[in-house]
Amino acid sequence: MNGKNDINTIYLDWAATAPRDREIIKKAVDLDAAAFGNPSSIHNEGKKATALLSEARERAASALKVKQEKIFFTSGGTESNHIPLLSLLLKPSPGSIIVSGGEHPSIINQCNVLKNRGWKVECVNPGKDGKLSPERISEKISTGTALVLVQAVNNETGAIQPVKEISETIRQFSGCGRTIKFHVDGVQAAGKIPVDLNTWDPDSFSVSGHKLGAMRGTGLIYVKNNPENFLKGGEQESGFRPGTENVAGAYSLALALEKHMNNMEEFSLGKQMAGEFITGLKKIKGALIIPENREPESCEYSPWIIQAAFASIPGEVMVRSLAEKGICISTGSACSSKKNSRPVLLAMGIPPETARNGVRFSFGPATKREEILLTLEALKEITARFN
Amino acid sequence: MNGKNDINTIYLDWAATAPRDREIIKKAVDLDAAAFGNPSSIHNEGKKATALLSEARERAASALKVKQEKIFFTSGGTESNHIPLLSLLLKPSPGSIIVSGGEHPSIINQCNVLKNRGWKVECVNPGKDGKLSPERISEKISTGTALVLVQAVNNETGAIQPVKEISETIRQFSGCGRTIKFHVDGVQAAGKIPVDLNTWDPDSFSVSGHKLGAMRGTGLIYVKNNPENFLKGGEQESGFRPGTENVAGAYSLALALEKHMNNMEEFSLGKQMAGEFITGLKKIKGALIIPENREPESCEYSPWIIQAAFASIPGEVMVRSLAEKGICISTGSACSSKKNSRPVLLAMGIPPETARNGVRFSFGPATKREEILLTLEALKEITARFN
Repeated sequence: MNGKNDINTIYLDWAATAPRDREIIKKAVDLDAAAFGNPSSIHNEGKKATALLSEARERAASALKVKQEKIFFTSGGTESNHIPLLSLLLKPSPGSIIVSGGEHPSIINQCNVLKNRGWKVECVNPGKDGKLSPERISEKISTGTALVLVQAVNNETGAIQPVKEISETIRQFSGCGRTIKFHVDGVQAAGKIPVDLNTWDPDSFSVSGHKLGAMRGTGLIYVKNNPENFLKGGEQESGFRPGTENVAGAYSLALALEKHMNNMEEFSLGKQMAGEFITGLKKIKGALIIPENREPESCEYSPWIIQAAFASIPGEVMVRSLAEKGICISTGSACSSKKNSRPVLLAMGIPPETARNGVRFSFGPATKREEILLTLEALKEITARFN
Repeated sequence: MNGKNDINTIYLDWAATAPRDREIIKKAVDLDAAAFGNPSSIHNEGKKATALLSEARERAASALKVKQEKIFFTSGGTESNHIPLLSLLLKPSPGSIIVSGGEHPSIINQCNVLKNRGWKVECVNPGKDGKLSPERISEKISTGTALVLVQAVNNETGAIQPVKEISETIRQFSGCGRTIKFHVDGVQAAGKIPVDLNTWDPDSFSVSGHKLGAMRGTGLIYVKNNPENFLKGGEQESGFRPGTENVAGAYSLALALEKHMNNMEEFSLGKQMAGEFITGLKKIKGALIIPENREPESCEYSPWIIQAAFASIPGEVMVRSLAEKGICISTGSACSSKKNSRPVLLAMGIPPETARNGVRFSFGPATKREEILLTLEALKEITARFN
C-alpha cells in the first residue's frame, strides 16, 4: 500500500501521518488547477475558485453534520488548536485556562506562552487509564476560567475522552450565553472514531488533513458561535482566517472527511485489528499495554492507537529495531519525538522507567491483518534478543 | 495558457494569484506521496520526508542566495508577515512599530491588533509616486521603536521601495546587535523583480508560493538572526514554526523560486510589456496611470503591476466590464477587494474620486503581448461607451 518502492515496509505510524490518498489528492489538485483564481477576485477565475472552495466547505460541513458557516479552513491541526488560545488575547485582562496534562504540544506549549503573559494555566492530569475525569475538571473551574481544552482522542494512548460529559459539566458553570469556552482537539478523532459534534457540543473543534490522507498543510476548525481570531489580515474565511485560501488543500480535506467520517465499517475493522494486536502483545514476555487495563476491543480507546512498553527496551531502541525490519512506528507524538520525553505518559502517573520504554503502534484503514501479525512476530524476536 | 475551457480568457490578475504551474505541482505532489512520512518520525518513511523537505529548503535558500538555516516554511505570505509582528508580544512591554500606509492588510490589520494591546503604531505614508522615503521613516524612529515593516513592491501600484536605503537608515539607529528589526514583505518581489537579500539586509523577508504558481497555502520567511515566534507547538522548523510540515507545498515553492528568482530574461520581457501597455493606456481618453509620473519602462516600478484610473468609471465597474469580455483584473489587493476601499491609493494622497476609479492590471511570465493589445482594445471600447 505504500507504493512500489516500499513493498516490504509495514507502516504503523498513522497517528503521525497517513499515507497520502493519491486519488483524493489528484482530484483536488486537478480541480484547483482548473479553478486557479484567487477566491477574493470578483472575475470569472475568482468565481470558479470561490465555487470550489464553497463546495469543499459544504462537503466538510455535511460530513461533520454541522452548518457550513461554522467551518473555517486553516493550515492544519496546530493552527486550528492555536485559534481558541490566541483569541483569549483579545480579552481586556488575563484569566485562567484549564488543560489536560495529556494534550498535544500545539496546546501545551502555546498555553505556556499565555502563562508568560499573565494567564493562569490549570493542569488536570488524566488517570492511570489515560482518561480525564469531568469532576476533576469541574474542581478547577473558577470565576476567571475562560477556556477548557481537551483532546477527543489522546494521540499516544488512544484514550477516548468523555467529551460529552466534560461539555455538560462546563455548561453547568455557564449562564445562557456560555462564558467558559470549550475547545476539543479532534485531530485523532475526526474520521477515526464516531464523532458527534451536535451531542458533544464543543465551542470549537479542530481537524487535521494529513492525518486522513488529505494534503499536508491543511486543516479546519469548527466554531459554534461568535468566531474570533487574534490573527487579522484579508477578509478570507469571513474575516476569521486571513490568507489566500488553500483551495486544493481544503477540497482534499473535505473528500477525506466524506470518506472516513463515522465510517462504521472501517471502525469495526479497526477494532478487530486492535483486538488481535493487543491479544498478541499480551502474550509477549515483558510487554505491557499502556494503560494496563485496556481491554482488546474496548470502546474506551481508539482502535487505531495502541501504546505499549517492553521491559528493558527503551522506546527509541524499539522504534529503531523495528525500523531495521521495515516496520515504522513512533514513540509518541511526532511533534515531540525529537525531544525524547514522554509527558503524556508521565501525566497519567506511569512510572518513568515504564514511560521511557513506551512505543506507539498506530493503524489506519489500509493496514492489513498480515502486517499486524508480522509485527507481532518481529516484536517476539526483538524482545527475545533483549531478555 | 489557462486550460482548454478558458481559451478566451485573458488573465491579468497575477498579483492576486498566478495560474498553478502544473509541471512544478505534479513533481512536488508525486515526490511528496512517495515520501509521505511525517518528517518528525525517525523511521525510514520519516527520513524520506525529511530528505525531501531538506532538499526544498536547500533549493529555496540557494535561489534566495542565503543560508538554508535561515529559511522557514510557513502556510503563506500572511503567516510569514505575521511572524515578526507576533514575536513582539514576547517582549516584556509594548514599544512602537513603524509601518507604511501602503502595506498589505496582513500587516496593517495585525498592527491594529497590537495597537489595541498597547503598541504605538506609527504610519509613514508613501509619496504621490507611491514610494517611501527613508528620511520620513527615520523621523519616526524613537527609543521605543522595535520593528519597521516595509513592502519591497507595493501590491497595488508596483512601486519598488528603496529597501536597501531604508535598511541602512534603520541600522544607523542601532548598535552592533541591531535592536530595531526590519521586516520586508517580499510577496510581490521574490521571483518577480531582482531581489538581493544580502544587500537589502532585512531581519526578515516573506515569500508566498501561490503568487509564483506554486501550491496555495505555502510560503516561507527568511530570518537573519535569532528567530523568535510567538506561536509554539511541535519542534518542526527548528522549533520556530510548529505544525506538520507541508512538504509538497515547500517543494513546489522551492521549484518556483528556482524558476523565477532573478530571472532577468523574464524581467526584461515584463518591462517591455509594461512599457507597451503604459504607452497604450496613455493614448486612451480619460486614462490616468497611478502614479501619474510613472514612465513606461521605469525601473522604479515592478513591470508586473500597473495601476490606472479611467475617468467617470468606478474601478469595480471597469473590473466587471472587462470580466464580461473575459479579461480578468482586480481593483487592488485581492485581500481587501470585498471591502471596496482603496487605502493604499489614499495613503499616497490620490484624490478619493480618482482612487475610486483605480484598477490594477497585473502580468506574469506567461502573459502574451497579444493579450496586452486585446486588453487595450477592450479598454478603448469601454471608455468610449462611458464618455
